[in-house]
Amino acid sequence: MTYAFDEQTAVVPLGDGAWSVDLHGGWTVGGGLNGGYLLAVLGRTLGEAMPGKPDPLSTSAYYVSAATPGPATVRVRVRRDGRATATASVELLQDVEGHEVVRVTALATCGDLGRTTGDVRTTAEPLVLPPPEDCVGATDVAPEGARTPPRLMSRFDLRIPREQAGWAVGRPSGRGEISAWFRLEGGREPDVLALLSAVDALPPVTFCLGMPGWAPTLELTAHVRARPAPGWLRVRHATRNLAGGMFEEDCEVWDSTDRLVAQSRQLALAPRTS
Amino acid sequence: MTYAFDEQTAVVPLGDGAWSVDLHGGWTVGGGLNGGYLLAVLGRTLGEAMPGKPDPLSTSAYYVSAATPGPATVRVRVRRDGRATATASVELLQDVEGHEVVRVTALATCGDLGRTTGDVRTTAEPLVLPPPEDCVGATDVAPEGARTPPRLMSRFDLRIPREQAGWAVGRPSGRGEISAWFRLEGGREPDVLALLSAVDALPPVTFCLGMPGWAPTLELTAHVRARPAPGWLRVRHATRNLAGGMFEEDCEVWDSTDRLVAQSRQLALAPRTS
Repeated sequence: MTYAFDEQTAVVPLGDGAWSVDLHGGWTVGGGLNGGYLLAVLGRTLGEAMPGKPDPLSTSAYYVSAATPGPATVRVRVRRDGRATATASVELLQDVEGHEVVRVTALATCGDLGRTTGDVRTTAEPLVLPPPEDCVGATDVAPEGARTPPRLMSRFDLRIPREQAGWAVGRPSGRGEISAWFRLEGGREPDVLALLSAVDALPPVTFCLGMPGWAPTLELTAHVRARPAPGWLRVRHATRNLAGGMFEEDCEVWDSTDRLVAQSRQLALAPRTS
Repeated sequence: MTYAFDEQTAVVPLGDGAWSVDLHGGWTVGGGLNGGYLLAVLGRTLGEAMPGKPDPLSTSAYYVSAATPGPATVRVRVRRDGRATATASVELLQDVEGHEVVRVTALATCGDLGRTTGDVRTTAEPLVLPPPEDCVGATDVAPEGARTPPRLMSRFDLRIPREQAGWAVGRPSGRGEISAWFRLEGGREPDVLALLSAVDALPPVTFCLGMPGWAPTLELTAHVRARPAPGWLRVRHATRNLAGGMFEEDCEVWDSTDRLVAQSRQLALAPRTS
């Protein structure tokens, strides 16, 4: 069986460090395509470019213009290829009226998480959520003012605890925090690419602060710390510093075995308040 | 008066998007030059390259080989120049036996923090430390096994609360957290470049976990959120996830007015334990 996520992130080699991809409109949100989806496309291309180092341990993506559905090119340029890890620059480009425009420029260090050893001394506490069946589906809620949830919300199954979805009914919590269960469309099991998607899938934490608009990501760095076990992922977003029209959004992703499998932080523009 | 920090981060234009720098051996620590120092050199070059956007709002640096004291080249390549912000790739290179070797490859989005507006809705609590005069100077302590503190520790004044310096006397706290007062050598007042230095100046949090060795940074992303006020900075490092031979180190920097002026996260290799 082929899952939608795998089809929508598929890349085709063009030679000379370039790949082509057909960006899928189903990932549209706000003014462009979802940042987590684009990150997964970059991660997939890196895996093709450096097959011996399949796992993006750290990826830093700078979103410089809004990507649109349709053809795009991914360019990889290895900056250092070491014994255990390799670091590469990776860019997503689209043709706009004959000009090649950068959508995302990123750096990544890749390795093999199957070979890592060492203790797990995680002091972070696993995220505790009510069972998925007691949570609200993301397609059942829409931010205040929006008539329907964005199409993006059909690409995965999000289950948000009721008390964290108050923003959908005009009662934002006022706390800069939102958590959810996450599973890709069709029940596709998680892997490192799914983690890259999961770190930018939830509604922005600014919804909880009574700011329902779009919050474009300037930069997002994701650390994939372990390959996830099968089953639902639990994802938590939080912000502690909304200032100067920007906010940071920290994300952690837990797998079904209570392992902290990914951490990310993004810097985003705060939605304009009227 | 010219401060050592300004001399040691000075860059000279070579034309064609390149600058030269003479990396100062006083920033040596572990197997190479300090990551925060190199970050400040990159930030300074970006300021020269894009004078209308002097502040590195977000910088993601990948440390791919150990930089050594002496001449180096910084190359800037603008990837997008927008109205309010510009994003560029910036690399630090050194000649090794006739070959140009990448030391640091980075991406940055720069803007003007003097023009940002919007509420400050920071829920993070300002860092509370005992007065600097009641803390231990970093040159008074050395990790267990080391006879003298690294030369790096003379580049700035670090004042560490006594109860957080137990690692220096064989009594690591066991908590993945360390905080300190920070001021550049000679009392140079802080600016955005000082912040880039401050986010990688403290001993690694692994000292507090009883792992006294060097912890090389793989990746560090720094968000500069405001220009700091004059006076001491307060810096806090913490980790929550040591696993697979790596750990994340979160950093926050507060200025003398209790403003959260910078946040950073790095992914580092855990020191080898014998």
